[in-house]
Amino acid sequence: MAVTNDVLGFTVAVGSAGVKDGTRRRTDVALIVSDRVCAAAGIFTTNEVIAAPCVVTRKHLERGRLRAIVVNSGNANACTGEQGDRDAIAMAQAAADKIGCDPHEVAVASTGVIGVPLPVERIAAAVSSMSLRAGDWSEVAKAIMTTDTRPKLVSVDVPLSAGVVHVRAVAKGAGMIHPNMATLLAFVLTDAEVAAEELQEMLEDAADASFNLISVDGDTSTNDTLLVLANGASGIEPRGEDLKRFGAAVRGVCETLAREVVADGEGVTKVFEVRVSGAASAEDARRAARTITTSNLVKTAIHGADPNWGRILAAAGRSGAKVDQTKASVHIAEVAVFAHGSPRAFDADAVRRMFEQRDITIGVDLGVGSEAAHAWGTDLSAEYVRINAEYTT
Amino acid sequence: MAVTNDVLGFTVAVGSAGVKDGTRRRTDVALIVSDRVCAAAGIFTTNEVIAAPCVVTRKHLERGRLRAIVVNSGNANACTGEQGDRDAIAMAQAAADKIGCDPHEVAVASTGVIGVPLPVERIAAAVSSMSLRAGDWSEVAKAIMTTDTRPKLVSVDVPLSAGVVHVRAVAKGAGMIHPNMATLLAFVLTDAEVAAEELQEMLEDAADASFNLISVDGDTSTNDTLLVLANGASGIEPRGEDLKRFGAAVRGVCETLAREVVADGEGVTKVFEVRVSGAASAEDARRAARTITTSNLVKTAIHGADPNWGRILAAAGRSGAKVDQTKASVHIAEVAVFAHGSPRAFDADAVRRMFEQRDITIGVDLGVGSEAAHAWGTDLSAEYVRINAEYTT
Repeated sequence: MAVTNDVLGFTVAVGSAGVKDGTRRRTDVALIVSDRVCAAAGIFTTNEVIAAPCVVTRKHLERGRLRAIVVNSGNANACTGEQGDRDAIAMAQAAADKIGCDPHEVAVASTGVIGVPLPVERIAAAVSSMSLRAGDWSEVAKAIMTTDTRPKLVSVDVPLSAGVVHVRAVAKGAGMIHPNMATLLAFVLTDAEVAAEELQEMLEDAADASFNLISVDGDTSTNDTLLVLANGASGIEPRGEDLKRFGAAVRGVCETLAREVVADGEGVTKVFEVRVSGAASAEDARRAARTITTSNLVKTAIHGADPNWGRILAAAGRSGAKVDQTKASVHIAEVAVFAHGSPRAFDADAVRRMFEQRDITIGVDLGVGSEAAHAWGTDLSAEYVRINAEYTT
Repeated sequence: MAVTNDVLGFTVAVGSAGVKDGTRRRTDVALIVSDRVCAAAGIFTTNEVIAAPCVVTRKHLERGRLRAIVVNSGNANACTGEQGDRDAIAMAQAAADKIGCDPHEVAVASTGVIGVPLPVERIAAAVSSMSLRAGDWSEVAKAIMTTDTRPKLVSVDVPLSAGVVHVRAVAKGAGMIHPNMATLLAFVLTDAEVAAEELQEMLEDAADASFNLISVDGDTSTNDTLLVLANGASGIEPRGEDLKRFGAAVRGVCETLAREVVADGEGVTKVFEVRVSGAASAEDARRAARTITTSNLVKTAIHGADPNWGRILAAAGRSGAKVDQTKASVHIAEVAVFAHGSPRAFDADAVRRMFEQRDITIGVDLGVGSEAAHAWGTDLSAEYVRINAEYTT
């Protein structure tokens, strides 16, 4: 057992294939490699239109064993027909050739524009000329960015009874962010020894408490991929309380990444957390919270620091969740603006000042039951419109 | 039977109560009165948070008989607690006093900001001092506007075997437009003689083919109200084929109003029609079409004339509708950009020019079955953000 500054047994490399930028000034291919086979688990988009790399990786994950992840940004390899499937397989093969493993042990991920054939030969050439080394996680985080303005990387060392295990995780987000199983791309690497089934369960819990609660634009991507690889290089296999502690660390890592993704959403100037209580069911609470975070009217009100709380309640009301408007309440930060079915006189300037903060909390009690849920959303800015009106062109 | 330029037996009046504009330069109260009791039908918001005037009017409609509609703009009387209920009843009473009828024969409608107590005494005073007269439908259409930029009025004379019946209809829209039973406010008046049950059936069919297919911002209002009043003043009671012809006229009127509402949506520069085919069920087709019209990524792509068709297919894929991406197709106007599961080479500049038109048609075949549906949406502009970031303040 060694305490180090990095997760043991993993090396990484990045390169440029000119996918994101014809001049190759930006990196757009990354390779994450374990020196031994890892137990692995994954969660993918629930979109019926699913990108080729997700289909290929889901298949490769069936045995719960992976050696590597190869990923490109700038092109999603989605809606690319049978050629797309062949290209995703070719990416796995290029990585397998590079590191000398079975291509079925390689996960493939892509992010970027939809419907454009992948320049897979340039990607394979970039992979083939890479130099793998330990520790360059921030370079990996940079290489997978699209419209993200900053790399997203979390490092956690988890002290367990038998010693320390290490977790490194990277993610990218920015647009088409309304994950329904996972965010666009997020990879969690650890040197703990954990079985694939346990990893899968852990990952699903973590996604439900993190990526599945965020929304930038309400659009669930075709490429959402969340992977965890555990190579056991620390020699530590957490059990019992240690396993719970490790699971909590994975969850914490996912929460941190999810918050970073939402805060770095396209054109985002503010993030708000919606806490729904008093719901008839957990599903109702979640539905109301998610609908509020995706309402353009709520998002623009927050952008304009406009204390127009009626839009919040109206969004809850159309969400499909049961609402008793004669008992419902709405709080903005600690200020009750609507309580037990009636509007409250409040200091509009004070609420406006709260809405001018970068982090805002909104509480909504549906007045029906006792279930609760929370979700994170972003404001809607003219900059968002500008970014997305000009994305492919 | 008389052929005239107006619907028989109705008079209208407008006034200013300073709800929309403290200086009373703009009208914000309207009264529509029939000289005899009308058969009446209505459709209201499906939002669980429903405004007081909708609750009151739904109750008044139980007997299928109305004499008048009183409406204000500038304040929605929604989320206003028990005081809101009392205020809506007081509005009905003010109109009943004015015209000398039972207050239960008055429909009440309100539109505007949510959660602010209604200045009902000023509204009642405005109603009491009104002068009713025939024909001023465009004044009514103006008085009910909020962020609409133009009044919405449709006049149709329907020739039937026994003579001509007249239909006048007004609507307002602009924001919180994603009707799920009716648009924000729309009133259809006719001098045909039609029973309340038949009117209700006709109205539901018309709403499904019109208001329920449009979306400006995905937000279903708390105040959506669609009413039809038939006073029989023409002396003509359509039956058989005539009744079908009359029903088709009502449907046509609703379609025209719905298109006007969507074209005049907040910050809208373009309107697009989505035609979904190849769906497993009519519900799937509708769900896919509606989801595409509400996708911020699709709306911004159209705003920017960006031929980024992958967002269209991704929106269909997350809609909950079954999609077979190996058989699906996407057309922009007449250009196939994705056919039978594969992207097609296309002239991006030609598609860009189509997206620069004010009216755009998008076709999506889900590749699964044979059901179809259509829906109308709008682009998302920086102007939309500006309008909605500054609405109450």
